[in-house]
Amino acid sequence: MIKDRHQARDILYNTFETPQTEIVSVRESFGRVLAEDIFTDRDFPDTRKSAVDGYAHIPGHSQYELKGETGAGRKGPSAINGKETVFVMTGASVPEGTLSVARVEDCTDNDGTVTIPEMAAGENVNNIGEECFKDTIVAEKGSVIKDNLYPVLFYLGRSEVKVFKRPKIGIFVTGDEILEVEDDYQKGLVFNTNRYILESFFTRFGFDFEYYGHVKDSREEVAGAFEEMSSKYDIIISSGGISMGKYDFVKDVFRNYGYEILFERTRIKPGSPLMLAKRSGCTFIGMPGYPAAFTTNLLFYVLPALRKAYGHKDNEFAVVDAVMTTDTRAKEGRFELNRAVVSVEEGRFYASDAGTQKTSHYNSFASVNGLILLDEETGSLSEGDMAKVLILDVK
Amino acid sequence: MIKDRHQARDILYNTFETPQTEIVSVRESFGRVLAEDIFTDRDFPDTRKSAVDGYAHIPGHSQYELKGETGAGRKGPSAINGKETVFVMTGASVPEGTLSVARVEDCTDNDGTVTIPEMAAGENVNNIGEECFKDTIVAEKGSVIKDNLYPVLFYLGRSEVKVFKRPKIGIFVTGDEILEVEDDYQKGLVFNTNRYILESFFTRFGFDFEYYGHVKDSREEVAGAFEEMSSKYDIIISSGGISMGKYDFVKDVFRNYGYEILFERTRIKPGSPLMLAKRSGCTFIGMPGYPAAFTTNLLFYVLPALRKAYGHKDNEFAVVDAVMTTDTRAKEGRFELNRAVVSVEEGRFYASDAGTQKTSHYNSFASVNGLILLDEETGSLSEGDMAKVLILDVK
Repeated sequence: MIKDRHQARDILYNTFETPQTEIVSVRESFGRVLAEDIFTDRDFPDTRKSAVDGYAHIPGHSQYELKGETGAGRKGPSAINGKETVFVMTGASVPEGTLSVARVEDCTDNDGTVTIPEMAAGENVNNIGEECFKDTIVAEKGSVIKDNLYPVLFYLGRSEVKVFKRPKIGIFVTGDEILEVEDDYQKGLVFNTNRYILESFFTRFGFDFEYYGHVKDSREEVAGAFEEMSSKYDIIISSGGISMGKYDFVKDVFRNYGYEILFERTRIKPGSPLMLAKRSGCTFIGMPGYPAAFTTNLLFYVLPALRKAYGHKDNEFAVVDAVMTTDTRAKEGRFELNRAVVSVEEGRFYASDAGTQKTSHYNSFASVNGLILLDEETGSLSEGDMAKVLILDVK
Repeated sequence: MIKDRHQARDILYNTFETPQTEIVSVRESFGRVLAEDIFTDRDFPDTRKSAVDGYAHIPGHSQYELKGETGAGRKGPSAINGKETVFVMTGASVPEGTLSVARVEDCTDNDGTVTIPEMAAGENVNNIGEECFKDTIVAEKGSVIKDNLYPVLFYLGRSEVKVFKRPKIGIFVTGDEILEVEDDYQKGLVFNTNRYILESFFTRFGFDFEYYGHVKDSREEVAGAFEEMSSKYDIIISSGGISMGKYDFVKDVFRNYGYEILFERTRIKPGSPLMLAKRSGCTFIGMPGYPAAFTTNLLFYVLPALRKAYGHKDNEFAVVDAVMTTDTRAKEGRFELNRAVVSVEEGRFYASDAGTQKTSHYNSFASVNGLILLDEETGSLSEGDMAKVLILDVK
């Protein structure tokens, strides 16, 4: 039941079906994922508009009679004859019949008689459909509604939008050694960290998740968690013991609740224990307990798979070429993901080894924003070498 | 009152003082900015722990008497003599006196007599302070609490954290042509977009902002907005007419409320109108009305300045070298920011011109995730040329 990383990714990605869709108010759509292609429903612009503050006119004369003014969204004179002009502001519709707009700074207004320099027809006028015509595609299904896409939906005048439904994710952690930060600390114990790793990245990606709780390593508690969670969530994620099959009863529990185990380990370091199991309507992902191993599996496997389950068109983190500014060690013959601090300088990426790569260490993750992907053939790298680096952000 | 981009950035960055600080629960800290360096308050680990599931023992014999077992967070036998062994699970503290842990799969347990292969002292034991000792710096002041840093605070056992206070930002838009998406549309009008551009990016960066409203282009409304907002917000941001000094009364309003104008335009395209004004306790940023010009100013000037005002150590978007996959046009002799779609393939960045660079066009921003920075000396670029590109994200 061990898989290499390619097999494991394929199985994970194929586990999730295309999510269902729903219509939401555009005001509630931030962070959601488009379940429709977005088209324009009219021409942009749909009237001829002035690109400058100035005098709308029909070229051919040098002096014009000022007939009034109009601003964007204001009613002004709607038509003029050949020797008349109207002062228009940027973005205002130009009166019918006018062909050009002369910049105010190039003209003189002498008590209602405006002197306008010679200019071509159409100058400083934005024509109907110039930006795009009706039925032009603006955004694709699978795009996350954030950054520039969110305001574009308003620009288009969309009050509602079709988005993918969000699978519900339930989380539990196992381990008798786990404390919460409000608890009294005792030597040798550890604070719950994996819950907050999920909270952090699930918040970033707009996932719908709940923390079920801390489950003790007993048959009763594990069975109870599965009984309750399997009907409540689409996806269950655990950290710690359960994923390692350390306790025989876990397999009994799976059998009792109808789960089929798809794999139990994958060939990566750190964090080879990763269990995937499935039954009708619910997928279980059992992750390792060490926060470093948990994070590696999350970034490399689980987040891309969950983003796909959420309908994200681009569901993987970017992998960039970076110059190593330190050495980094790995064994040839296996796939390793080394923690890195990645920066951009003068347009190039640089990666430094985070200082420790031991599975039991985690503090250095505070500044880790990338994982160096070291193939079976790659082995260790030296300062100055190029590396493939999965990056979480660009600072 | 026109500035080049370097002057404008300097003035903007210097406008905001270092924010004040406050203590918050770590559970409320997501997205906030550290106002303290974070140090370990103990050794990691603070007991000797087993790196594997197996038998803790003192090497030197081949057979040992099994004295019990211990798991992470469970009490087990605390000390043994030279011919005894204890079964320990990964992460559990090893009993006093034991030196090494033999993997369970390398040993045989014959009814309480365990055969253990020869091994070096210290093998499979994580020593005290091995990850790091007490008082090691883990994260720097000015870091945003997200991604991996948020869970590290829990790993460290921090229940509270010192963060920077968040300046309060008030937003208003001007323009008689502005509709909301729920309004009935009429030809020639435009939907409020700039409000949602701010909402989108301010949400991404965790800013504290409120929408004051839509202010009509009249002396009374503008004066009313300034009167109310100047005492309520640390920063006021507007879009549209007001920034262009198109209405004389705006300067009177500034004078009446004690604002000093620092600049009114900057030498960039699109979007040269950008006004910065300041009075004691309040900074006003007046931005252009076209969404494309608004976005360019936001990404290039305003967001980096606001992130600095929020205490962000790394406050600017990354600028990367990208290969142009299309031509992109610009005039030599001026600084232009062209909309681009940026992607990463095989570790390299590629940028394509978004198809239109006119200030009055905006729909293409739906897929724009970068701005090509075209210096005065650069002018147009051709397919295959290298470009400097400011990027919002990496897909």
